[in-house]
Amino acid sequence: MSLNIGALRADTPGTRTVAHLNNAGSSLMPRPVTAAVVGHLRREEQVGGYEAAAEAAAGLEDVYSSVASLVGGHPDEIALMESGSTAWALAVALLPVHGRRILVARTEYRSNILVLIQLATRLGLKLAVLEEDTHGNINLAHLRRELVRGDVALVALTHVPMTGGLVNPAPAVGRLCADAGVPFILDACQSVGQLPLDVAQLACDILIGTGRKFLRGPRGTAFAYVRASVLEQAAAAPRSRLPLLRDNGEERLQARLLESREASMALRIGLGRAVDYALDLGIPPIRERVLPLAQTLRSHLAVLPRVRVHGQEHPGSGIVTFSVSGSTAWQVKEHLARQHINVSTVAMPPSGTEELLPITARTPTAVRASVHYYNSEEEIQQLISALR
Amino acid sequence: MSLNIGALRADTPGTRTVAHLNNAGSSLMPRPVTAAVVGHLRREEQVGGYEAAAEAAAGLEDVYSSVASLVGGHPDEIALMESGSTAWALAVALLPVHGRRILVARTEYRSNILVLIQLATRLGLKLAVLEEDTHGNINLAHLRRELVRGDVALVALTHVPMTGGLVNPAPAVGRLCADAGVPFILDACQSVGQLPLDVAQLACDILIGTGRKFLRGPRGTAFAYVRASVLEQAAAAPRSRLPLLRDNGEERLQARLLESREASMALRIGLGRAVDYALDLGIPPIRERVLPLAQTLRSHLAVLPRVRVHGQEHPGSGIVTFSVSGSTAWQVKEHLARQHINVSTVAMPPSGTEELLPITARTPTAVRASVHYYNSEEEIQQLISALR
Repeated sequence: MSLNIGALRADTPGTRTVAHLNNAGSSLMPRPVTAAVVGHLRREEQVGGYEAAAEAAAGLEDVYSSVASLVGGHPDEIALMESGSTAWALAVALLPVHGRRILVARTEYRSNILVLIQLATRLGLKLAVLEEDTHGNINLAHLRRELVRGDVALVALTHVPMTGGLVNPAPAVGRLCADAGVPFILDACQSVGQLPLDVAQLACDILIGTGRKFLRGPRGTAFAYVRASVLEQAAAAPRSRLPLLRDNGEERLQARLLESREASMALRIGLGRAVDYALDLGIPPIRERVLPLAQTLRSHLAVLPRVRVHGQEHPGSGIVTFSVSGSTAWQVKEHLARQHINVSTVAMPPSGTEELLPITARTPTAVRASVHYYNSEEEIQQLISALR
Repeated sequence: MSLNIGALRADTPGTRTVAHLNNAGSSLMPRPVTAAVVGHLRREEQVGGYEAAAEAAAGLEDVYSSVASLVGGHPDEIALMESGSTAWALAVALLPVHGRRILVARTEYRSNILVLIQLATRLGLKLAVLEEDTHGNINLAHLRRELVRGDVALVALTHVPMTGGLVNPAPAVGRLCADAGVPFILDACQSVGQLPLDVAQLACDILIGTGRKFLRGPRGTAFAYVRASVLEQAAAAPRSRLPLLRDNGEERLQARLLESREASMALRIGLGRAVDYALDLGIPPIRERVLPLAQTLRSHLAVLPRVRVHGQEHPGSGIVTFSVSGSTAWQVKEHLARQHINVSTVAMPPSGTEELLPITARTPTAVRASVHYYNSEEEIQQLISALR
């Protein structure tokens, strides 16, 4: 079962305008997603915002089921959010904290690290960095030793980090955490939509995803999966924010208690449509298309004289990062943009394990090209020609 | 200078479909607002999300200036948010806390009260309720006495509460707070777009507004005004979240540090267009149109046999709430909806000063009809006829 790329490109108006290799930034929405968002906005214009939401109530409820199908949870374990970072920050606060150390990978998304530093400061915890090999692969033996020490409060992992095409071994991390009884939060913002996700197999307590990247949803959409047992513990905890929200006319304990009181229903409907679109294609065929494309991109980049490709030889996701000697990442991006080729720039993770923090003006920056299934081999050739 | 209602109705497609008297819920977007949102979504579909944002960078920056013009602050004091409640919760956490009591009105927006209860619990503070007359007008003499006691950490006020058309005397409250050196946070979600707002005259440290109500912006948009001195104090405070964010490549100390890392640029552009639309009309002419309409609505309701109108005889805003004997608020709303008349139901504030909290299934509910400048006298007649 393989994808009909011609038909999928025809369903993606942007492919006629740009060679979009910035799918890890925000991918091109397919026609049905934009149509769903615009359709609801038009209805709001016609009958009013709450009135349009009432009409679309069943469809809005279906969004929870769709996201649950995508990641393998129950609809009651899904919250619809506006930003992955905000979802991550709100959800991590639900986890019970027993222990004295928080374990993170060096490649953890920086905004998550900022939240963890605040959490650690408030609760008197320490942040410890997981050992890894030169490509950033987590050393699972080190993780096991750390968990055995017994003072770990929480493990946080970004499934597919910002750079290098790395895919962290989330299921193995999840199993080790579950065996040790340590909460595990997985940031899947850059894997959802390109790689299969199943919260049972991942053994994560919380999983965060975003709409705009490989899911091809609208900007300003995200979701949180929060395991039912985490919700129950959080609701029972003293000073929890969940019980306060729970009395708000809600009967069931639902992850959507994390949601803010107001949101754009048009964007939510667009997110649901994007999830359904991905489910209709099937995530395994998407992955089977993305990985060879990324491999082609990487191989072609690697033979260019002034280009240095970062990360692993065999990318596990659609993300490839590289540097061009004699040019800043920003200059490369601008050069490509003038030829209607979209890439992004991205700060490289700090090299020392102690330096989790500041990204400053001096942080090394790389060019990030990220492919999705609708990209063509010709677009990769355009990028290579433009760089030559 | 009065408004051309015919032209404004022609610019509001929804007026041909519904008699929309639910402007305090979410008002009908005028054509240019929907067009701005849809236009940006289409551009994202064509060239990519971040690429469309880069093209629209100047326009996105203008949104801050527009909001600053609307409420009287500096663009650096404005943050663009997705929800008024979230904006309120994030902004109130910036205020310095000295003192032992938080003063709130009985009519304070319930979601704000939940946040204050959490804040009070965490910091060991007490919530105290301001005295008021039978219509909910704050007793300023009582506020002055409380402030003189010297242990007030914070005063929180909702400018136009959910029910009754009441407008709290925000400038007088602000002056008293400023004289006492007590931080003052004003929830202007239901006043912005229908009543003039000027943070200098209001003497508030924080002002929160939403896009979807009287501003006629899209759902999922809101803003915070945070006085520069509050930002400076917050950045200097130990354990502040601002310094952490400040190093994120930002040079200036800006309220937008409160924003999440990801948001819908299409909705922000729609919010900006809605603010400009209101500024073009002028808020004073809008107010001059809204108040007589609300007065007409109230007078007509008052003479209906089974109807009891709540709140003051002369509404200070476009909001009028009422009950119909023998029918629940929900039944009335449904009855009207079948005739294409939009109203909403709203929980009445608790009557005892001690019962700030739970809204339960037994909380009395009223019908809320809320007019905006584009409503016509005929639409009010439709409502009255349908109720008769």
